[in-house]
Amino acid sequence: MQFTINRSEFIKAMNHVSRAISSRTSMPILTGVKLELDETGLTLTGSNTDISIETKIPFSDDQAQLTETQPGSLVLPAAFFSNIVKRLPGETFTLINTDGLQAKITSESAEFDINGQDAQSYPHLPEIEVTNHLVLPAETLTEVISQTVIAVSKQLSQPILTGVHFIITGGNLTAVATDRHRLAQRTVTFGESDVNADIIVPGPSLTQLQAMLDGVETVDVRVAENQVIFQLGENTVFYSRLLEGNYPDASRLIPTEKRTTLTINARDLLQTIERAALLSHEGRSNVIQFMVSDSRSTISSNSPEVGRVEEEIFAAQTSGDELTISFNPDYMREALKSFGDEEIQIGFKTPLDPFTLVPTNNETNFIQLITPVRTY
Amino acid sequence: MQFTINRSEFIKAMNHVSRAISSRTSMPILTGVKLELDETGLTLTGSNTDISIETKIPFSDDQAQLTETQPGSLVLPAAFFSNIVKRLPGETFTLINTDGLQAKITSESAEFDINGQDAQSYPHLPEIEVTNHLVLPAETLTEVISQTVIAVSKQLSQPILTGVHFIITGGNLTAVATDRHRLAQRTVTFGESDVNADIIVPGPSLTQLQAMLDGVETVDVRVAENQVIFQLGENTVFYSRLLEGNYPDASRLIPTEKRTTLTINARDLLQTIERAALLSHEGRSNVIQFMVSDSRSTISSNSPEVGRVEEEIFAAQTSGDELTISFNPDYMREALKSFGDEEIQIGFKTPLDPFTLVPTNNETNFIQLITPVRTY
Repeated sequence: MQFTINRSEFIKAMNHVSRAISSRTSMPILTGVKLELDETGLTLTGSNTDISIETKIPFSDDQAQLTETQPGSLVLPAAFFSNIVKRLPGETFTLINTDGLQAKITSESAEFDINGQDAQSYPHLPEIEVTNHLVLPAETLTEVISQTVIAVSKQLSQPILTGVHFIITGGNLTAVATDRHRLAQRTVTFGESDVNADIIVPGPSLTQLQAMLDGVETVDVRVAENQVIFQLGENTVFYSRLLEGNYPDASRLIPTEKRTTLTINARDLLQTIERAALLSHEGRSNVIQFMVSDSRSTISSNSPEVGRVEEEIFAAQTSGDELTISFNPDYMREALKSFGDEEIQIGFKTPLDPFTLVPTNNETNFIQLITPVRTY
Repeated sequence: MQFTINRSEFIKAMNHVSRAISSRTSMPILTGVKLELDETGLTLTGSNTDISIETKIPFSDDQAQLTETQPGSLVLPAAFFSNIVKRLPGETFTLINTDGLQAKITSESAEFDINGQDAQSYPHLPEIEVTNHLVLPAETLTEVISQTVIAVSKQLSQPILTGVHFIITGGNLTAVATDRHRLAQRTVTFGESDVNADIIVPGPSLTQLQAMLDGVETVDVRVAENQVIFQLGENTVFYSRLLEGNYPDASRLIPTEKRTTLTINARDLLQTIERAALLSHEGRSNVIQFMVSDSRSTISSNSPEVGRVEEEIFAAQTSGDELTISFNPDYMREALKSFGDEEIQIGFKTPLDPFTLVPTNNETNFIQLITPVRTY
């Protein structure tokens, strides 16, 4: 293998596939990046047991200045190789692997020889027969992921809840996640389609995917037996394994009755919650109180050993019964962040029932639910 | 105690004194910040066993908008209180401590009550009789610290070497630090003076002090029995304890003979060293080689299990014997950084003797010395 390439374009591609590469893995070859040069361009591959990322730099990409002398393939230690490329002096670098497993990397007066591994030993990416596929704007997918992934469980004792449940049917995609303390659900409509799917994607896969969506226009989603594949633009493919099992029916957690409602700007309330959390985090129980009434609504927290906080909040509108409810401010903070600067309606039934947050302009498509803390 | 103050000006002062406050201390009251309001202004104090910092916000500071209602003093938990002030909603906040040890902090609609401690229990800062004092431009002090503190020892087994040795005599200040593997020495002339001092200041104290010098014009240095005091501008005082003992005579380490010299831009060489260090850090022994000759000079490193690197360097001038010498690239990197973008002369005697780096424009005032590694 021998090629010359623009250094900063190579670094961009390397940063993409590095998201799938871990220095802690039971298969040493997976600490490496696979480079493969053929007549169409240079393909980089990174993989761990959950996700694999493949990105291609085609000869047709002018910025990449890719010139090939000899096709071939090689696996190089990813972190070390990436650090070298980042520090090379020239605008471009040349990589030569003539025989054996050593790569000579040159750029201006600097010359590195580094030991690689045989690309034949690198695991093959799953070959997938796809019947269903779905094209989504990257922006929509980013929103859906960021709004739901916050509610996935971090407890490995509930493996099925560490993923986001996607249900695709009748031209709608619904994503839902819950850790049994809170729930986030978002539905988007993508137009008429006969695509049907019911899959659970691991939360960490989605977090990595989301970080790669910046600057991407559309994502082609393909679902197979135990894999989902996201094609980002033309040159990057993201594979994730799926979680196996039945996701619990989340919809029955959502209360239908609201006895108290409050309308407020999500960002304003977020700031108040963050202040109150400063105190609750110092105290023994991480709990804050929400008191809602027609005349005055407050957020407060009290930890005798540390102190107390109280702040009046200015709701656009309140209605229904007076209510005082206690909850974990960290759940509330993450839920509020997912609404940005929108106006939301918070709906309560009783101090013992889960309460819901929905945007005032569109109740049906996006809902955050939080279970209160019993303080007595 | 009761006062109202501009929030961002208070945060600046709080950030200063927080440099002396640790959450891990054997005296719980030292996790707090002492606030003291009198007829001249508000004084904040932070302290640990090594350094104490006092900063004053006077009523005359218009930006601080300090208004007093009632003088007094109180110690508040520093990190918690600081986080609260940073998140308060208003431009100003009011602190009230009417009776007891609780402070009420209000800003717009937010209201915190937090538990404090009695300021009477806070240790007194050392009262110092000063005969000697010296005024230095803050910029000069910043330079002297950054150029020498890199060479202090991190080994607590050599306590005296964890400080920088300052010798003030005949209108000169010489700072020297060594960890027995390398040495850094800088001399500055501050004009005629009969100030004499010979002190060892802990390296970590100097690092904290240096971080506070940004935006300061002059520093008044006062030396006492076992303390040094740096007055930064009008309102901030930095106390550091001194190390006790005799600092070894460092000057005899510096070789007087140079059999090989090489003149080069420090930043260019730094980049080459940083590339070579990528490889030496992956290998078993963290060593790189410098080969100097009239026709071609190179930096290289070789670790059979990882690979090798070689880079030609382009010196402005070389003279004397051919030489190959091995050394720790991390020492070289820190030494080179202290020269910025300057042209330096590197002087070697033999591959077994320490070598020196000095700026080409001024050999006598600043010198970095590095002991080579024996590779055979």
